[in-house]
Amino acid sequence: MKKLINAPESVLAESLDGFAAAHADIIQLGEERKFVRRRQLTAGKPALISGGGAGHEPLHAGFVGRGMLDAACPGQIFTSPTPDQMLEAAAAVDTGAGVLFIVKNYEGDVMNFAMAAEMAETKTMTVIVDDDVAVEKSSFSIGRRGVAGTLIVEKMVGAAAEQGMALAQLKELGDRVNAATRSMGVALTSCTVPAAGKPTFALAEDEMEMGVGIHGEPGRRRVKLEPADRIAAEMVTAIVDDLDRTGDAILLVNGFGGTPSVELYLMFKAARKELEKRSIRVARSLVGSYVTSLEMAGCSITVSMLDDDLAKLWDAPVHTAALRW
Amino acid sequence: MKKLINAPESVLAESLDGFAAAHADIIQLGEERKFVRRRQLTAGKPALISGGGAGHEPLHAGFVGRGMLDAACPGQIFTSPTPDQMLEAAAAVDTGAGVLFIVKNYEGDVMNFAMAAEMAETKTMTVIVDDDVAVEKSSFSIGRRGVAGTLIVEKMVGAAAEQGMALAQLKELGDRVNAATRSMGVALTSCTVPAAGKPTFALAEDEMEMGVGIHGEPGRRRVKLEPADRIAAEMVTAIVDDLDRTGDAILLVNGFGGTPSVELYLMFKAARKELEKRSIRVARSLVGSYVTSLEMAGCSITVSMLDDDLAKLWDAPVHTAALRW
Repeated sequence: MKKLINAPESVLAESLDGFAAAHADIIQLGEERKFVRRRQLTAGKPALISGGGAGHEPLHAGFVGRGMLDAACPGQIFTSPTPDQMLEAAAAVDTGAGVLFIVKNYEGDVMNFAMAAEMAETKTMTVIVDDDVAVEKSSFSIGRRGVAGTLIVEKMVGAAAEQGMALAQLKELGDRVNAATRSMGVALTSCTVPAAGKPTFALAEDEMEMGVGIHGEPGRRRVKLEPADRIAAEMVTAIVDDLDRTGDAILLVNGFGGTPSVELYLMFKAARKELEKRSIRVARSLVGSYVTSLEMAGCSITVSMLDDDLAKLWDAPVHTAALRW
Repeated sequence: MKKLINAPESVLAESLDGFAAAHADIIQLGEERKFVRRRQLTAGKPALISGGGAGHEPLHAGFVGRGMLDAACPGQIFTSPTPDQMLEAAAAVDTGAGVLFIVKNYEGDVMNFAMAAEMAETKTMTVIVDDDVAVEKSSFSIGRRGVAGTLIVEKMVGAAAEQGMALAQLKELGDRVNAATRSMGVALTSCTVPAAGKPTFALAEDEMEMGVGIHGEPGRRRVKLEPADRIAAEMVTAIVDDLDRTGDAILLVNGFGGTPSVELYLMFKAARKELEKRSIRVARSLVGSYVTSLEMAGCSITVSMLDDDLAKLWDAPVHTAALRW
């Protein structure tokens, strides 16, 4: 295992300390590093809290800040955070307007956020994100997995909350954005969880995992590596067939951590062309490594359908460690 | 070779097309993709142009926009751009106040920018960036290599140009920032140039290249992988001994492309602690993959000394594909 770390057991804590020091203008760490919270809260705004296993950075802590999340609860790498983390985060950032949990659809996350919701002293509602069309159930999920579309849900709901939307409407909006969003990923290499010390799975030198999950879960099929255009066509076809919509959309090409920018923009070109063939116009774009699987090589494609209101929410200012405009 | 590409010879062109489509609000491509230029020019402002081999993205095209570069000339991967690219970029973005070339210190780049300067019809000046303390000369450079400190020079000079500074003073400022900036890198893995089809160099499973260049050039020594704290201490020591300064600084921890965010922030924590031991206060921070070597695993540490004026230039608004605040 080749990593810039001191010891597997201290990776998350040391990384969070670095993150907090580098972005002290935007965020601060909760006690015992149980959560990352926005430094400045907006009174009367419902609080948005997400979380999940670490290893997907910048998701979620990198999206804490004005116009997006109020807090994020990091679990150990690829491991759900615990209900006490969510409870303490909720207590820290709730200003009286309630809390919206935004949760990726994995059993551990869903269960722990549900426990926190039950125990919380404030009103809570929950949006479950399940945008991955690759498989209908997976190693850690009942139903579809939540992947890079989570970023889009967090951005849209975050903008609406900043503009004064109330909790129940934010929950509805989150569900609506999730329903308009689909993703699919492909892996060219595995990744290595520090505590495991060896790659999560093995791919031969000429293979890719089509439909991979963000923890290296199996996808639809393991096949020979193909040209980028064909990979993009297969992913876009799966997404668009499932969406069954036309019109304006956001196209997010998301790197899994080990894929250089030059390949992500090449995939963006390919995916955009495929979408246009299917009468989906790329009205907004995002390209980068935002929802990662440590150093996995590969990428995901996310398409999120827009209407005028959603486009305005997407365009609204955001000021976080990882997303700013 | 496992890459999301169609063919080695079309990687750069397709990637640039994707980049231009994704960031059409900020930039546009020159004819035959010879350069990336800012869409909106500021009349009367000296034009800032950089460039170099591709494979280091987001450097330089990702830094074209308000508050930073006016144009960037991308060569093929790890290959200098040609003088005609720089000449055409200069002709496209010069608004009459002259052109400043910002050039990383590699023989090919320096020679080709010098030829362009000689042939240009407008007044040009050149800042050479040579911030890498690892070695005194290298495979492609006479004198020190230019690496991640280039980002800091481009940001500072870009901000000053936006505020109305004239060409000769921008050149002086660029030289001053370069003189206050030092970097050093470490590689855990090699990278593979698509046209070569195989890794640039080989590292054993327990080895790292201390002082590596951003094209995989040899560093100071090839040694056993060490804990992150020790790696950071060695790099910071090399930097600070060479700088021989104390006071406020920017600390940039830069990923080479294949290193996850969680490791970069961990390295940031370690480097910051080492700097503070040596009476350098981290007044500004930047952590991310900004000056890369395709998918190489590893990172560089850059320290750039600040005074009040430089801090203001760093804080000034910037709006590019890759850097925004």
